[in-house]
Amino acid sequence: MRKVYMDHAATTPVDPAVMKAMTPYFSNIYANPSSLHSTGQKALESVKQARKKIAEILNGHEDEIIFTSGGTESDNLAVLGTVSSYKLQDTSNKSKPHVITTEIEHHAILEPLAYLEKTGKIELTKIKPGADGIVDAKEVLAAIRSNTILVSIIHANNEIGTIQPIEEIGKGILKWRKANASIYPYFHTDACQSAGYLDLNVEKLHVDLLTLNGGKIYGPKGIGLLFVRRNTKIQPILRGGGQEKGLRSGTENVPSIIGLAKALDLVFAHKDDEVARLEFLRDRLIKGLLRIPKTRLNGHAEKRLPNNVNISFMDIEGEASMLYLDAKGVQCSTGSACASSSLDPSHVILALGMSYEAAHGSLRFSLGKSTTKADVDYVIKIMPGIVERLRKMSPVSLDMKHF
Amino acid sequence: MRKVYMDHAATTPVDPAVMKAMTPYFSNIYANPSSLHSTGQKALESVKQARKKIAEILNGHEDEIIFTSGGTESDNLAVLGTVSSYKLQDTSNKSKPHVITTEIEHHAILEPLAYLEKTGKIELTKIKPGADGIVDAKEVLAAIRSNTILVSIIHANNEIGTIQPIEEIGKGILKWRKANASIYPYFHTDACQSAGYLDLNVEKLHVDLLTLNGGKIYGPKGIGLLFVRRNTKIQPILRGGGQEKGLRSGTENVPSIIGLAKALDLVFAHKDDEVARLEFLRDRLIKGLLRIPKTRLNGHAEKRLPNNVNISFMDIEGEASMLYLDAKGVQCSTGSACASSSLDPSHVILALGMSYEAAHGSLRFSLGKSTTKADVDYVIKIMPGIVERLRKMSPVSLDMKHF
Repeated sequence: MRKVYMDHAATTPVDPAVMKAMTPYFSNIYANPSSLHSTGQKALESVKQARKKIAEILNGHEDEIIFTSGGTESDNLAVLGTVSSYKLQDTSNKSKPHVITTEIEHHAILEPLAYLEKTGKIELTKIKPGADGIVDAKEVLAAIRSNTILVSIIHANNEIGTIQPIEEIGKGILKWRKANASIYPYFHTDACQSAGYLDLNVEKLHVDLLTLNGGKIYGPKGIGLLFVRRNTKIQPILRGGGQEKGLRSGTENVPSIIGLAKALDLVFAHKDDEVARLEFLRDRLIKGLLRIPKTRLNGHAEKRLPNNVNISFMDIEGEASMLYLDAKGVQCSTGSACASSSLDPSHVILALGMSYEAAHGSLRFSLGKSTTKADVDYVIKIMPGIVERLRKMSPVSLDMKHF
Repeated sequence: MRKVYMDHAATTPVDPAVMKAMTPYFSNIYANPSSLHSTGQKALESVKQARKKIAEILNGHEDEIIFTSGGTESDNLAVLGTVSSYKLQDTSNKSKPHVITTEIEHHAILEPLAYLEKTGKIELTKIKPGADGIVDAKEVLAAIRSNTILVSIIHANNEIGTIQPIEEIGKGILKWRKANASIYPYFHTDACQSAGYLDLNVEKLHVDLLTLNGGKIYGPKGIGLLFVRRNTKIQPILRGGGQEKGLRSGTENVPSIIGLAKALDLVFAHKDDEVARLEFLRDRLIKGLLRIPKTRLNGHAEKRLPNNVNISFMDIEGEASMLYLDAKGVQCSTGSACASSSLDPSHVILALGMSYEAAHGSLRFSLGKSTTKADVDYVIKIMPGIVERLRKMSPVSLDMKHF
């Protein structure tokens, strides 16, 4: 049976060249980079080279790259670290800090923020996107108050792939800070999904904090980074040996750091060609699937990642259609992988103002390096039959299950 | 030149069998275990098998194994997670929680505790070990108060290898809880250094929480676990997609989880033979080095890990002797790797009641699977010359540097 993996937004395989780069660091150059002897220093030097390469790609400095265990940790560090740093400074505690985010962030942003709000540590504003899944920069900027310490907005959404106006928001925040002679608000973006497809120049984006991870860019899982602009006031979450300038304790994960740098280098080296190739495939898939009656594309048609196709099939259950596709060798997902075991409808699709039914009927196809035109045509060919079959199977009872 | 790696306590190479077990999960069975399609479920099944294997080794249950990014994260989760859970329950905040630990914990325990104490969130008692580096169980138990919520004691110390009376303390805590009809104090032990050498049966040790990681047992870096006994009240540090029963969000690091389980399985399978082999080598090395004048062994001579040799060479600087050894192909360390770039003397050696000078002159040789009798004899042969040379080089000026 044909195997078509269209779940690259959930995770990607490790590129063979990345694997090759990592391999010596498991059993050969294996020492602890904090060890002062020569083999430790050799490992440290490799970590330094990886940091340098990544800093170049982001147009930042080496000392601004903090390695973490992944996107979730980086997102949490950006949120919890800036809030707790503010709390430590402001011992009078007279003004509760305020954070701005959107309704369509990854759970790794929404959950720590919800916890901080629930425990009375912050005031939270969540900006609703337009029906096209894009937030209005002006609306974000208008929400800034004197006590706003952080704005966190995902670069490109993980479910519907819509690209947010990060540069415009970044510029506006800079202007606000200047006008108010304030170091706040800081600006964080989660770029886990956009890496390899969009420019991540931190100077152009005007971000103070940026999250990246390995597992979405053909690098290893369990590794990520937080870009932290110099002079940003931030506290660690994890404390111990004081690695990563005290911002992230724990023995450096040398093979994965090497792998992350290599993966980032590779996706950036092939960015332009891959974007063009995937945009063609994406648009072909969208066009093909929208020929099926009662379907709609979720998120803006052009301002979306080149690899993201998110479609709502009315009157059917996304999970059922995903499993039918799986039985025919096609792997895709409903919502994000992280929350896919939950039967709640996607918070992202709901934020677009769509019904529970439409949210339940949505499928995400995320293309990648291995995706071919033949793969796309195969999905276009088998999908109508699956939809028809599922629609015949008493859609009412399917929908009733969860309402 | 002969290469003698005697820094296994800092980190170990990945065992070839572990590497082989991990390899398919990088680029073949690479899907996200949270993805509901068949390849995601295949990855999930492998994670389940790994969890089951580990639970068997620890004599716990599968749902008690929480995968993290390493020892530091697990230690932090044990400390911060139990304290913040208590704070959430106790909204009246009438009694400040109390934590008991020792002066010779890893920084991944001491630093989060110091932070909690500094910010007024806990009361902290640090038990001083005896001159032999072993804490008195009775002293620990006598320190328990009505508001003690956590006792955290390292199973075997990472610098001097001394083995703490975990079982005795665990029994005493159970008795206290019963007598006082309290769920507290919880008992956590960091077993990163003892894994593979000591029994980690959580029922026998009577622990509620236990930390392990991959990088010290011939497994991968960047992976660890926290054993969390059922019904233990604990809050996550990292929030997001809700993986690991909501206690540790973030895409599961499948290859490393597989590697951790395999590594743990291997070290336990060879434990008895390896302990006997290393004890012989350890004692040979200790005896050989103590023949050098003005030396002493740090920590109890028998109640120590089979792979740990920690010696103070009076009137010389540990860092200098470490570098001289390195020049002759021998890798060892001063203090722990995590803090070795600091010039502060080891907090562990100081806690034994020794002088700054003695602490500065200490070296840790940590043996491992690759260590042979010839390696040990080589170190015994070259060490006297190095010590003599360094002692001739004006020890006073060396010592003066840091005082």
